[in-house]
Amino acid sequence: MYDGIVQDLIDEFGRLPGIGPKSAQRIAFHILQTPTFDVTRLSHLLGELRERVRFCEICGNVSEQERCAICRDPRRDATFICVVEDAKDVAAIERTREFRGLYHVLGGAISPIAGVGPDDLRIAQLMQRLADGTVTEVILATNPNLEGEATATYLSRLLTALEIRVTRLASGLPVGGDLEYADEVTLGRAFEGRRQL
Amino acid sequence: MYDGIVQDLIDEFGRLPGIGPKSAQRIAFHILQTPTFDVTRLSHLLGELRERVRFCEICGNVSEQERCAICRDPRRDATFICVVEDAKDVAAIERTREFRGLYHVLGGAISPIAGVGPDDLRIAQLMQRLADGTVTEVILATNPNLEGEATATYLSRLLTALEIRVTRLASGLPVGGDLEYADEVTLGRAFEGRRQL
Repeated sequence: MYDGIVQDLIDEFGRLPGIGPKSAQRIAFHILQTPTFDVTRLSHLLGELRERVRFCEICGNVSEQERCAICRDPRRDATFICVVEDAKDVAAIERTREFRGLYHVLGGAISPIAGVGPDDLRIAQLMQRLADGTVTEVILATNPNLEGEATATYLSRLLTALEIRVTRLASGLPVGGDLEYADEVTLGRAFEGRRQL
Repeated sequence: MYDGIVQDLIDEFGRLPGIGPKSAQRIAFHILQTPTFDVTRLSHLLGELRERVRFCEICGNVSEQERCAICRDPRRDATFICVVEDAKDVAAIERTREFRGLYHVLGGAISPIAGVGPDDLRIAQLMQRLADGTVTEVILATNPNLEGEATATYLSRLLTALEIRVTRLASGLPVGGDLEYADEVTLGRAFEGRRQL
């Protein structure tokens, strides 16, 4: 629709997740028409990203060093490991400021449909971290969906052999949500997990 | 929340229109974790964009040459000029394949609140284009909102001095829309502009 490079850039932005053709067009024109937008900086960051970012050799979180900022931090409680599917989940949990232990990023969840088995995840590395007896509790924080639940079940069976407390994040109604709009599975879980006040 | 460059890139994407922090995070991780995504290409396009793209010296549309593809095309009907606010509007109208004339991009609309007056728009250039008598109809296709209407009214008054037909795009119900959900102004316009069948 546009001449050369404008359309090329729109197409390229359109390949990113969550950006449709309209948004891509809006972004391209924003960059073109906003003199204060630092194109060089975005361009430079994109170029550097893959070169500088690696994954923490211990937990698998994103990091610019061999070990991530959390694994390097001596104030973190090394007796807790929270197991998550993705590095994005680490960031989400960190934002709550509820957890002061360490993480382990699996790199996905077990999914027969997508052809992801236990061997495709960082499970061997997790078992290795648990071998020296430092860790006393493993919190399974995989997603509350089919794949995440399957992964949590698989891991909890694997971990019963070790003398480690294995817990799972609570399911229930989202805070600030409306009971009326909760799906039946969530509402059922909220009943199951009800607590005495 | 993340180490260095990952967060820098998330922040940078977050500065683009329509991208919130969650989307920005998703995009950064997509780029990081999708080996097939061509980072170099996006980075290169961003760098080239402002250097290569200029605005057509005749109509103000985006172009990589002094004159845009539409102004260069001898098959376009030079007796019609469609006046739009933005280069994005040119692309929108081109997609309809309804119009075979030329365009004139104003670069915005009159808006006392935003401090945009007639002198800030490419109105003098429009008058210059109309001077030689080639153009027989000017179609005012500014947005159907307050600023767009004010701009259309201003232009139509300015053009009455010349012997040129001045028209305005029809307002009415969007095709495929639901009458029930139309706002009263649109519905009112649809009545005003009703046609005999």
